[in-house]
Formats: sequence, structure tokens, C-alpha cells
Amino acid sequence: MSGTEVQSVRTDGPTADGVPAVSAQRLLQDLAELATFGGRADGGVDRVAGSLADLESRAWLAARIAQAGLSARTDAAGNVFGRRAGTGDGPWLLAGSHTDTVPAAGRLDGAYGVIAALEVLRTLHEADHPAADSLEIVSFWDEEGAAPDSPGGLTGSTALCGDDHVNDVSAYLELHVEQGPRMESTGLQLAAVTGIVGVERYVITVYGTPNHGGTTPMEGRADAGRAVAKVASRVADLAIGTDAAMVANTGCIEFLPGAPNVVPGEARLTVEFRADREASLRTAGEKLRALAHGSAAEENCVAEVERISRKPVTHFDPLLCDLVAETLAAVHPATGRLFSYAGHDASAMSTRVPTAMLFVPSTGGVSHSPAEHTPDPMLVQGAQALLHAVVAVHARHLR
Amino acid sequence: MSGTEVQSVRTDGPTADGVPAVSAQRLLQDLAELATFGGRADGGVDRVAGSLADLESRAWLAARIAQAGLSARTDAAGNVFGRRAGTGDGPWLLAGSHTDTVPAAGRLDGAYGVIAALEVLRTLHEADHPAADSLEIVSFWDEEGAAPDSPGGLTGSTALCGDDHVNDVSAYLELHVEQGPRMESTGLQLAAVTGIVGVERYVITVYGTPNHGGTTPMEGRADAGRAVAKVASRVADLAIGTDAAMVANTGCIEFLPGAPNVVPGEARLTVEFRADREASLRTAGEKLRALAHGSAAEENCVAEVERISRKPVTHFDPLLCDLVAETLAAVHPATGRLFSYAGHDASAMSTRVPTAMLFVPSTGGVSHSPAEHTPDPMLVQGAQALLHAVVAVHARHLR
Repeated sequence: MSGTEVQSVRTDGPTADGVPAVSAQRLLQDLAELATFGGRADGGVDRVAGSLADLESRAWLAARIAQAGLSARTDAAGNVFGRRAGTGDGPWLLAGSHTDTVPAAGRLDGAYGVIAALEVLRTLHEADHPAADSLEIVSFWDEEGAAPDSPGGLTGSTALCGDDHVNDVSAYLELHVEQGPRMESTGLQLAAVTGIVGVERYVITVYGTPNHGGTTPMEGRADAGRAVAKVASRVADLAIGTDAAMVANTGCIEFLPGAPNVVPGEARLTVEFRADREASLRTAGEKLRALAHGSAAEENCVAEVERISRKPVTHFDPLLCDLVAETLAAVHPATGRLFSYAGHDASAMSTRVPTAMLFVPSTGGVSHSPAEHTPDPMLVQGAQALLHAVVAVHARHLR
Repeated sequence: MSGTEVQSVRTDGPTADGVPAVSAQRLLQDLAELATFGGRADGGVDRVAGSLADLESRAWLAARIAQAGLSARTDAAGNVFGRRAGTGDGPWLLAGSHTDTVPAAGRLDGAYGVIAALEVLRTLHEADHPAADSLEIVSFWDEEGAAPDSPGGLTGSTALCGDDHVNDVSAYLELHVEQGPRMESTGLQLAAVTGIVGVERYVITVYGTPNHGGTTPMEGRADAGRAVAKVASRVADLAIGTDAAMVANTGCIEFLPGAPNVVPGEARLTVEFRADREASLRTAGEKLRALAHGSAAEENCVAEVERISRKPVTHFDPLLCDLVAETLAAVHPATGRLFSYAGHDASAMSTRVPTAMLFVPSTGGVSHSPAEHTPDPMLVQGAQALLHAVVAVHARHLR
């Protein structure tokens, strides 16, 4: 069978290896219903953490957990949990993601991992599978950090890492859409994610001399804008030349005072690097400093380079990653391993417990957009893979 | 005597050639008093057209004209005129400039030409010089175009050009600070301005694909920001390569949506060219279009290039320029001819009447800044030169 075809996923009764099958209809229906909270006319979702839509969707999720005969709980940080009632003190294998979104988001980023975890727990619970008793699901609060008053995202998972409950969590699994085109372009249907790139952000500020854009001769200018434009035009080559797998982004730029006829006396540029190796981030940062100071000097200006944030490279638990990778093959032959170029709650969780992630492809690599899409059969297949992984972890840890 | 020394200007009684001398004290005092309207703690001025400070300064100017025994008048456009009373129907040699400013301006741009014209008329009036009867002075409304509701500047002079009164104007003379460093760097103390550069403004908009700045591989990006940064970094070389005397400015830039972790899907850049030859503006515009489309194509993007404004090259009246240039030598040996790289009311006036300008140096070439400065002796010298020019025009035209 071709690696690009989706397997037929059985949704009634046990699979060939005796593991229960998720309900495709229930999974897709719940995903559609969740997307009505903050739903947009263009098919996207506005559900920024703390918004009315976000709060209502969390109440809906808790009710949905209860309707399945499970026990729902919301902690002080706003995280919504679900598990079987009367199952003691753990430890729990935690599975989930987040239901908050960026503005004008797609309907899958985060939501998919939460609803899939719910479907896995429901399925195991109904089958009275022994793994049901040690599984807890979660929708973390404010993964995206999109609200003005957010501390920057990963808020709920970071809070859990500082909470006593994390001591009762044995491991964390997160299913997510890839949000990039790598799986689609290489024909992967399922991927075990082995880590998350490190992210470093820099702000480059160049100081020149604001002056009349007409009367000041070209050779007498100290044009801060031109210096920053040179940097912006060369950052991509700098990154690729450092590490072919790393990425760089120049998303924000500003010329001051910002008038057509005034030579920019000050200019700012934001540069973000992501790489799966710390050495690449370090080298790129050094090259960026040299590029900024050199470009400023060429324009009779002075540059300041500040690293404003740094998230180190996350390597997930190797044994758990191996276990996940092995179980994927039970669902589809076209599987592999990937590094994630986007941040996830799994990054915070991995600082406290063995963690791994599962990816399904994103059509066209589009995310953070109403056009975000993954074909329904792939969504069902991913949820089934999560169930397999949960069962495998249960068997390895508790049997 | 060195060309960089200021001549001692006699301010009491006639000069050696029988022409009356302006009063340095009165000129500088009126300049200082005008600078109190909208005066800033840093020595600069905020007197945007239509502001309370602008309106009050115009009332003060009319009163100052009346105090000199002259007749003041404000027309429907807001221009303030002054002349001797009872001097018939003209024609008038008009001399002046504007008293409105950009925000955070210096105290000389415009104001100097108005107060100098007042001082020249006062001096000729008191001496009962025949040139006094045919001289009218003016402070034009809204030269700068700095108010949000301004039609773009040169508002009062453009209005006069459409008013019946312009038929009674025989010529226009405007004294101004250079606002650039060319006189200082070449040692000129006075300059006859023979024209004003043409100015063309372009907006370049590049359309790419907004995408996740982490998950999108470098080779799959359509980064509109990078395309525009390439253009911004190359415009200066484009201009210099077209015409060594032309200037280019890239004062405004924008990346959209403008987030550190989103690949810019749209980007905009404003480019302004100034040249003393139409052919240079035309060639630079063609090269800019090619550069924008080429840079966009390199980044898998599409560019739109729009010329949003065009002011043609202004050539002042050759005979009047010759006359002005000849009279400057009577005041100082270090004189010459220049093209203006800034726009002036003289540009509008030259469309209807023979026009010329006089420049005095700007220290360090600084203008549109509280730090704008010209040494007092040079200001007095410039006013005296204007008086000489007025007398020479009177002798040539009316005798």
C-alpha cells in the first residue's frame, strides 16, 4: 500500500491486535462542536485564552467529560482535567494539549490533541481496558500566549510543573498537527516527535542621524534604516549557512521617525532563530552580532544587539519516543521521527516528566490560519495512534 | 578676506553703495519674538499650520507690520501680507516665506524669510527708498503640510497662484536657510538658488505568504519582508548610479502582520527620489520598478510599484536669478549658485511669476530639528542681501 494513502481505521470493536478502536464519528463531531466556540465565518476560530469563547469552551469540555461518565476537574491555573472516577491516587499517564488559540486560528491547533485524548479515554473506559484507570487527559490553559496580559504562553503547563499534581504524573503524551509541510513533503502519515527546536529572539536597534531626506547629500547620511534593511536581507543566508536545518525569521521592522522625507535616525528589527542544536543557535547569534555591527558601521551608524528571549532545545525522553515510534507502525506503515519547529506544552512538561509527542500532517503546512487543515481520516488515524501509544505505555510502566 | 568669515554688516545708515542697511538688532529681536509662539524648552518650535501658536503668530506678525507704519492684510487663504499704505495698485515685487513649521522644528525654516522681508520693507520705508512703494511682503499659509488635514503643503502660495492678486505680482523673492550642508562644505556665505529639485515618491508593496515563522522551511517561504528589505538596502546605490547629484530616501517601512514568529505576508516601503533633472527621476523610477519586481521574484513574491506623487523640477527665472547672483557680491565675495533639495513656496510662485531664492548656510546642514541654526551675523548678512536684491529688481523693472 502506498505511504500516502490513509489506512481504513476500524471504529467499531477491537482492532486486529485486540486494542479498542476510537469512534471516528464521535471524534469528528466533538472537534466540530468545539470549533463553534469562537467560530468565524471563514471557518477559523478566535479563542484566545481568557476570552468568553475560551471560558465557554472549557465549561463545554468539562461537561463533555462528565457526559462520558468520567470525572472532570479544573485546577487553579485554569487547566481542565478528566479521568475515570474512583481510580485512586495515580500515577497518571497524562495526555492532552490546549484549547485556546491565536486570533484567526485554525480549528485543529491544540483542540485536536485535547479531543483526541478525550476520545481515547472514552474508548478505553467503555471497553473497560486496564489502561483507562491510569490515563488522565488535559486541556492546558493559555498555550499560545496570545492575550496581552499573558506571561508568554505555555502558562497552564508551566503552572502544572510547579504544582503538587505533577508528582502524580508518570509521563506526558501530546498529539498535535504538524503545522509545517515536512510530513506532507516526505509522505509521512504519522510521526514520533523527538524534541522541540530551541528558539532565540534578538532585537537589533541601529542608531543613526535623523535628517532632511532631500537636503542631506547621500554621502553625509547616517541612515539607520538602510543598515537594518541590509541585516534583514542577509539573515536567511546567515541561518542557512550556519545549519541547513535551522530557520530564521525577521517578522518586525521599524524605521523612526517614519516619514517619507526624513532619513531614519533609528531603526529596529526582530530576528528569531530556531534550531535543533544549541551550537547552531550560538553560532547564528554570533554571526548576527557581527552582521549588525558591520552593517551599521557601513552606514556611519551604531548597532545594539539584544537577545530578548531564549528557549533551549528540548529533547524528549528517548525511551518514550522509541515506544511511541514503535506503536505508530501498528496504525500505518508510513511513519517516522521528526523534530518540532513550533513550541508546545510538551516542552514545559518535559522538564518534569518523560514526554513525547505524535504528529499528523498539516495540509500545505498551513497553521495559525483559518485555512489550517488535516483530512478527517488522518485525524482519526492520529487518535487511534495515540490510543495505541497509551496502551503501550500502560503495558510497559504498569504491567 | 577668507570666504568663511562673515562681513561686518553696517546696520545704521546707508551702505557704501547708497543702499540702506537693515537693523541687525530689530531683525534678530523679531526672530526671537516669533520663536516664542509655539516655543519649546529645547529651543525648537511647534507651530503647525492652523494650530493656536500658528494663528497667534500670524496676528502678532500683522500687528508688527502695523507697528512699523505699514498696512497689514490677511487673505481668505490665511496668507498675511504687508506693504506701504496708499501705494496704489502695484505691480508688487513680493518677498517672504512662511511662519508655520513642522512639529519639533527649528526657529529659522520659513520664519527667517518672513522676518527678513519685514525688516527689508521697514528699512526701505524708513529711508523712504523708492523701492519701498513696490514691495509687498508675505507669510504664506501652511507651507509645510504638517497638519493631518493639510492638502500637502505649499497651501497658501498655491492659493495665491489661483487668486486675482497674483496678477498684480511682478516677481517673487524668497530668502531661506539652506537646510543642507552644501554651502558650509564649499564655503559659500550666500547663494542664488536657481531651481528646486523634482520630487517623486513611490510606494512598493510586496505580497508573499504569511506563515508560521518556525514550522515553515526556509526554502518554502514567500517572505515579503525580505524582498522589501533587499529593495531598501539597494535604493541608495541605484540613485547614485543614476545621477551622482540626486538623492533617495527610504523613510517608511512596514512588515505585516508584524509578529516575531510570523513570516511577513505583505510588506511596504516608501521611496523618495529628488533630482535636478527630469531624466534622472525617470531613469531612477524605471530602475526602481525593475529592482522591486526582481527582488520580489527572488523571494517567490509579487510586487506592486505605485508612484504616489510627482513634483516636477522647478527652474527659476534665469534673468531674475542672474540679477540676484550679481547683487550678492555686493554683500560678500563668497557667493555662488545652488539648486534647492527642499521644496519651497517659491516652487508654486514660479508657475505664475518670475521667481528666485536666496540661501544662507545651515550649521551642520541640520533642519526640521530644534538644533537648526545659522550664526546671527549670517542671518543679518542674508537680510541685507535680500534688500540689495529688492533694490536691484526695483531698478531693473521700474526705472
